[in-house]
Amino acid sequence: MAFPLMTVSMWQSGIISSTGSDASFLWIALAVGILGLLAALFFARSVLAFESGTEDMQRISNAIRQGAEAFMKRQYSTIAMIAVGLAIVLYIGYRLSPFTAPYANKVVISFLIGALCSALSGQTGMFVSIRANIRTAAAARTSLSSALKIALRGGAVTGLIVVALSLLGVGALFLAFGGLRHPQQTPFELVGFGFGASLVALFAQLGGGIYTKAADVGADLVGKVEAGIPEDDPRNPAVIADLVGDNVGDCAGRGADIFESTAAENVGAMILGAALFPVFGLKGILFPLVVQAINIIASILGVSVVHSREDEDPMHALNRGYYVTSFAALVGFAAAVYFMLGARWWLLGCGVCGIITSFLFVRITEYYTETRFRPVQSIAKASLTGPATNIISGLAVGMETPAVPVIVISAALLLSYYFGTLGLADVSTISDYSKGIYGTAIATMGMLSSAAYILAMDTFGPITDNAGGIIEMSNQPDSVRAKTDKLDAAGNTTKALTKGYAIGSASLAAFLLFSAYLEAIHDIVSQRMAAAGEVLSHSWSFSNVNLASVPVFVGALLGAMLTYLFSSMAIKAVGRAAQTVIQDVHEQFRDNPGIMEGTSLPDYGRCVHIVTGAALKEMILPGILAVAMPLSVGVVFRHFSSAFHLNELADAPRIHGVPINLSGAEAVAALLMVGTISGILLAMLMNNGGGAWDNAKKYIETGAYGGKRSEAHKAAVVGDTVGDPFKDTAGPSLHVLIKLLATVTLVLAPLFV
Amino acid sequence: MAFPLMTVSMWQSGIISSTGSDASFLWIALAVGILGLLAALFFARSVLAFESGTEDMQRISNAIRQGAEAFMKRQYSTIAMIAVGLAIVLYIGYRLSPFTAPYANKVVISFLIGALCSALSGQTGMFVSIRANIRTAAAARTSLSSALKIALRGGAVTGLIVVALSLLGVGALFLAFGGLRHPQQTPFELVGFGFGASLVALFAQLGGGIYTKAADVGADLVGKVEAGIPEDDPRNPAVIADLVGDNVGDCAGRGADIFESTAAENVGAMILGAALFPVFGLKGILFPLVVQAINIIASILGVSVVHSREDEDPMHALNRGYYVTSFAALVGFAAAVYFMLGARWWLLGCGVCGIITSFLFVRITEYYTETRFRPVQSIAKASLTGPATNIISGLAVGMETPAVPVIVISAALLLSYYFGTLGLADVSTISDYSKGIYGTAIATMGMLSSAAYILAMDTFGPITDNAGGIIEMSNQPDSVRAKTDKLDAAGNTTKALTKGYAIGSASLAAFLLFSAYLEAIHDIVSQRMAAAGEVLSHSWSFSNVNLASVPVFVGALLGAMLTYLFSSMAIKAVGRAAQTVIQDVHEQFRDNPGIMEGTSLPDYGRCVHIVTGAALKEMILPGILAVAMPLSVGVVFRHFSSAFHLNELADAPRIHGVPINLSGAEAVAALLMVGTISGILLAMLMNNGGGAWDNAKKYIETGAYGGKRSEAHKAAVVGDTVGDPFKDTAGPSLHVLIKLLATVTLVLAPLFV
Repeated sequence: MAFPLMTVSMWQSGIISSTGSDASFLWIALAVGILGLLAALFFARSVLAFESGTEDMQRISNAIRQGAEAFMKRQYSTIAMIAVGLAIVLYIGYRLSPFTAPYANKVVISFLIGALCSALSGQTGMFVSIRANIRTAAAARTSLSSALKIALRGGAVTGLIVVALSLLGVGALFLAFGGLRHPQQTPFELVGFGFGASLVALFAQLGGGIYTKAADVGADLVGKVEAGIPEDDPRNPAVIADLVGDNVGDCAGRGADIFESTAAENVGAMILGAALFPVFGLKGILFPLVVQAINIIASILGVSVVHSREDEDPMHALNRGYYVTSFAALVGFAAAVYFMLGARWWLLGCGVCGIITSFLFVRITEYYTETRFRPVQSIAKASLTGPATNIISGLAVGMETPAVPVIVISAALLLSYYFGTLGLADVSTISDYSKGIYGTAIATMGMLSSAAYILAMDTFGPITDNAGGIIEMSNQPDSVRAKTDKLDAAGNTTKALTKGYAIGSASLAAFLLFSAYLEAIHDIVSQRMAAAGEVLSHSWSFSNVNLASVPVFVGALLGAMLTYLFSSMAIKAVGRAAQTVIQDVHEQFRDNPGIMEGTSLPDYGRCVHIVTGAALKEMILPGILAVAMPLSVGVVFRHFSSAFHLNELADAPRIHGVPINLSGAEAVAALLMVGTISGILLAMLMNNGGGAWDNAKKYIETGAYGGKRSEAHKAAVVGDTVGDPFKDTAGPSLHVLIKLLATVTLVLAPLFV
Repeated sequence: MAFPLMTVSMWQSGIISSTGSDASFLWIALAVGILGLLAALFFARSVLAFESGTEDMQRISNAIRQGAEAFMKRQYSTIAMIAVGLAIVLYIGYRLSPFTAPYANKVVISFLIGALCSALSGQTGMFVSIRANIRTAAAARTSLSSALKIALRGGAVTGLIVVALSLLGVGALFLAFGGLRHPQQTPFELVGFGFGASLVALFAQLGGGIYTKAADVGADLVGKVEAGIPEDDPRNPAVIADLVGDNVGDCAGRGADIFESTAAENVGAMILGAALFPVFGLKGILFPLVVQAINIIASILGVSVVHSREDEDPMHALNRGYYVTSFAALVGFAAAVYFMLGARWWLLGCGVCGIITSFLFVRITEYYTETRFRPVQSIAKASLTGPATNIISGLAVGMETPAVPVIVISAALLLSYYFGTLGLADVSTISDYSKGIYGTAIATMGMLSSAAYILAMDTFGPITDNAGGIIEMSNQPDSVRAKTDKLDAAGNTTKALTKGYAIGSASLAAFLLFSAYLEAIHDIVSQRMAAAGEVLSHSWSFSNVNLASVPVFVGALLGAMLTYLFSSMAIKAVGRAAQTVIQDVHEQFRDNPGIMEGTSLPDYGRCVHIVTGAALKEMILPGILAVAMPLSVGVVFRHFSSAFHLNELADAPRIHGVPINLSGAEAVAALLMVGTISGILLAMLMNNGGGAWDNAKKYIETGAYGGKRSEAHKAAVVGDTVGDPFKDTAGPSLHVLIKLLATVTLVLAPLFV
């Protein structure tokens, strides 16, 4: 084993300093990270060991695989170019000022490593998923239970790799940047990692999201609507592109999303933990990493126990796994509180707040998107009077959806803040405020403590969806189709629920990351003061932003506007990319009449190629907008504020009598906060509205209000089509945008002051 | 003349104090306010002097009038009950604390007078509008030019009464509350007026908006869609309800909206003017009232010059009037700056910023909602592939619309702030911040300086719409219909443009009102300190809100959520109320088959009665939500914050060593700011999206993409129907909600500290 040896040599070389035994938590976390990768390898091998079906099935599966791989390859080369370009800009920006120049290398390195880890976890997760689909399909011919197992284990590979790489990346950088020697400073130097991760996530989710819906809408419009052939019919040239889309959109996109969530939130929580250094020392900073380690172990346990009876609803089995994971995470959390946080049990209460919040978010999402509850039924009923009332009703439901989640988040924040102050009541050297904020950070950690299992459930969705497509296209008997239909239905549910989880964790983390940004500005100001030989007043806090200043109001307006413009761009991008699909299918039908007669095969690859190009082209502009807007707001206000007499009121700290110019930092704080809140609400509207439309259609298809081919069904199909780019492109991209805003502002913070 | 006599007697009785000649500006403003009422009377008489058409036309017009009057009567009794109830709550709330008890009477009186003036201006405006419609119709039989004149002058009655009553109400209360003796304190005591006005406005706009769209959607669904009879066909029992709706929704609703805008913004600007008392004295506080006086004179001029040639596009004539009004307002503004603000011409620059902003908002709205530009054409084109793509495209356009307006508002705020500091650069006793904020207040005044004319143009819309309906239902020749169609088209344009103006002024005013709220809290804190014998530190400012505190974040989340939930409720209310219309029409058709055969008349009144009841019932819940939410957030956080250890960080001023609890005030500040921003953006999305859908349908009806009865047209009708509750119920109600939030928080501010 190289691990102990490496430790010894690091010890000898002085990398490990006197922080002593506390550092062992870092080693344990890193060891569990490696264990997570090994478990992923194990699950991958166990999936690949299953047989891969008939030749027909393999032909289809290979086409999906090739399409997905071609897309991923082109997508990641595009993203790599953007990332390298941005790294250069970042490096130059940091080098320009004497204050930031010393950090230029660390920021750029952590940025590139974050980007690389994110890309790597996306790639390897996909590698397994596009191989698990055919094996799930093959197994479904004999046993529902083993099909379920293959699909979930295939998903678990993504889940474990994502969480493990995030843990290992942050942990290794912490070590490499000397975190054991100056633990309070190092977390600030890791912000580049989160930014790299979220940059890749944004483009992965945007590109994948545009791809999947352009292919879906395009295939449906020419296939189902114009040519009148069923979904997944092999005569449709866009059918493979559609199946590829499930992988690159849901699987790779959500993987990248959760990767950046865990990365950004780990770094954010470590920054806040640094404020509690006097109480917990290194342990408070390492706590988030240990929680990720717990997450890995709990999720491995959860995945391992899932098996279902042949006649059971697969959702029951999956939920059992979720409960096991949550329980194991809770036990692990309690142990971590005992060993690391001095058995302050109120802090465990914070973690429980987070776990309960994630549970409630999943349930609320269920209420708004499942057929047995009022919202979906009201949309279905409104379909009776046509598409207009269906749409109005769906939008009204979508706008209603943020109400309860916002109350849940508010309660979670208040309670965990309160528990934080209680848990640390005996500490007098730390302000109640820092205690409370750390409490909310622990709650966020609690919410993330089952992330790997949730992600496994999520990736289960596209795998079973693909398996269903393969069975359909290879003309298997109905009994097999019934089995994959069951799995597919469970997959649709898990996809919707995990979207609820993702937005819930984003909301809770928003406050954490926002606090981390304010903490970072505070840190920067105190450094600048120290460099000038002045001392920062103890009572000054950057968190006191002047809400009534023009830069703050304008920053807030621009932040909210960004989320609308970004969504608009994402939705329009789907429309344009879908047009290219429709055009290609039309051409194929025209040039090769044998396709519709079933005598010759369509050119699936051409369609995949075209939609790949279109999706990648379309992802660039909204992606760049997301990065450019906070950057320009911060820099513009920093430079123009004195000319515009904007900065006079702030009781800013002074260097040689001149107040430090904080207008840029304040404007960005407002942009971040209001942009995040607006983004969370818009994303809930789109995710839940889209999910409700989808299921209203499915509800009618079960026979309600006239069933399939009724006028109500036609109206519901309109709603479903409107909801598609909402719930699969714009909504999930907004999750990522929110976190990108947080990480980009953290990284750029020194440039705003 | 009673006026000089009254002045003398007031002088003798000591109401007029030594502030001396500056007070004359108040007298001038009040005199112009009375002049405005006289001009409204003159315009009303000149409209009523025209002949009122054939007996057929009168029968229809009477039905509309009776329906509108019945609705208004029931609506205002409901609102009166709510207002009285709220006044009692307010009174008790204020009496409970020794700090606020002395103000209880003033707040409640100004609240009730504000509510009364708003109701009065709504009622009298409507009185003329529902009489101008038939006279416009009658005149259209001979001359387009005189029809245009009647409609505009009918609208001008509303415009002038609204602005004049707002000016007189605020001015008279200022006088009555001793504003000439202690001018710096009195503006804070007027906040009740704005709250009363916005409470009435909220219910007027909500009730009217729900009524108009429920009647419209209901009439269309059973008439056009089911029975296949054209719009405005006399056989449709809901047709009168539909025509009534134009009056109660657009006319009364928008009138109440602009009434509260001018009232709230006047009071807000006076509060900010009080901060500049050392520079301008009383004149700085009276400046907003004088600008309203200028508004009245400029608008009278503008309305008087409008006359058009028979063959001219009515829009040209209306625009000429707008330009005349703007120019006259500019001249008046310059005079006011010269006489009242010491000829500081940079401050005129602030006013010009406001005037240009209102112009740009009108133009941007035009771009997004007129057929000749890209957005509407893209929606029309998307209709070719069905309703789903039409909806997606419309939503994408709607989400795009806030981008440019937000940039315009940002630029206007920055520039007027800058001009404010330049204009007062020689004053050293006032902070740059106060100078800049006063600059933004002047810009808001500039934007409002043509409000009366804008409102006249707006009310022109429902009058011409009604005139068209009367002509259609009384079977006049096509040549007459062509004339009213021309007027109707112009009316549709003015309605859309004034919505752009309303949201623009709301955005600019948001910052003003927000600053006024922070100023009010500051004032309250310094009073409490003084009462306890302590002195508030000069450097302390409440505007430094702790963004990273949990109450602020939660307040912000709840503020944004409120706008979504409120919109959802408004939209659902339309749907439910429309169902009652549909049901009644079905019953009438069933019970009386003679209706469809044209042998017997439907019972229009029954339908009017039913939709009245439904709309009034539906307006209650969202209305109460809007008032209850800021109240409960403020009170809950005030009371629970110490229990939750939430208030520790704030460097709050201390009384006897105990920090003043500001958590409630901070949470409400965040709710107000983020709620306002979210509301502005949602309203833009809904107004412009709805307008674009409407015109995309009209564009197709001109023959594009297959014209009427094509599949594209069917798809566009779906979009239009979806847009209806957006642009005529939820969107305009959001304008009012935003301002209600500002006024309710101003009034309740003392209860949060």
